[in-house]
Amino acid sequence: MQLTRFTDIGLRVLMRLAADSGTTTRTARDLAAELSVPPTHTAKVVSRLSEIGVVHSRRGRSGGLSITSLGRTARVGWVVRQLEGDDPVVDCDAATPCPLLPSCRLRGALARAQNAFYDSLDALTVSDLALPASGDTEHAGTGAGRVLPLISRTAAVRDAGAGSGPSSTLSAENRNRS
Amino acid sequence: MQLTRFTDIGLRVLMRLAADSGTTTRTARDLAAELSVPPTHTAKVVSRLSEIGVVHSRRGRSGGLSITSLGRTARVGWVVRQLEGDDPVVDCDAATPCPLLPSCRLRGALARAQNAFYDSLDALTVSDLALPASGDTEHAGTGAGRVLPLISRTAAVRDAGAGSGPSSTLSAENRNRS
Repeated sequence: MQLTRFTDIGLRVLMRLAADSGTTTRTARDLAAELSVPPTHTAKVVSRLSEIGVVHSRRGRSGGLSITSLGRTARVGWVVRQLEGDDPVVDCDAATPCPLLPSCRLRGALARAQNAFYDSLDALTVSDLALPASGDTEHAGTGAGRVLPLISRTAAVRDAGAGSGPSSTLSAENRNRS
Repeated sequence: MQLTRFTDIGLRVLMRLAADSGTTTRTARDLAAELSVPPTHTAKVVSRLSEIGVVHSRRGRSGGLSITSLGRTARVGWVVRQLEGDDPVVDCDAATPCPLLPSCRLRGALARAQNAFYDSLDALTVSDLALPASGDTEHAGTGAGRVLPLISRTAAVRDAGAGSGPSSTLSAENRNRS
């Protein structure tokens, strides 16, 4: 069972942008290089993310991409639905339609299962994805290869103990930095 | 979000075999023709279904394929897991691994969502899939194009009102026929 490459890239872009402070912007080309994905694919994905309102593209000399407030608080299941589109999980209506269609009970079951998948992802917001994985707070912000440099060890430890929603704490951290 | 063609064919095969009485067998080639899928793909799928114990292949002149008792009562989520294999829903470890891996929270969320998908499908057994879709009991077994001829209108109406599990009722129906 696979999500599309389009969705994969979309989630990477959002995770990366969600780790930025409010004033930082990045170009699609920068993002592609940083996330190890092709620039042409990234441009198409960014276009869709902008269309659904989770990414803002600022024009001009200091222009670039940033995540919107809607983007930070968006439920991950909702984002994935927008990126995946409306195709069902199996193709019943191919060149030769499946002969079992008239009395098929599987289609309804698969549609419910797909909803369960998205509903499960709705437990997280995009901001939640920008935090270090649990058990990793000791190393947040240190070491080579960390692509989320704004999540400092201090912030991560404070967030883990704060008790308030992770997205609001991250926003507070960003406000302190700007 | 897509299941593989392999899984699609596997489910069609099981749905078709589950509608047979205990003494009927079919060849993989017959199934391929009836289900509008390529024979080579069907043969590979049947091999896997046999390996996991849901299909039996009887050798000899009156040989052929039939569903096993395990197959009839198997949970659909379990079957799909066996056919889909263990690949995660996104490919984090491609030729160039995703740079966000070290602190990624998405992988765990996707694994939980995938489990929610399969758990949802576990509400049904393979036998449940062989019954007409709900709201369709009036037409079960009649009309052109019905590929589940053994589900008669009488049986379907009785099943809908019986109150016992559909798979046990179907088994009772099959015993009455043999």
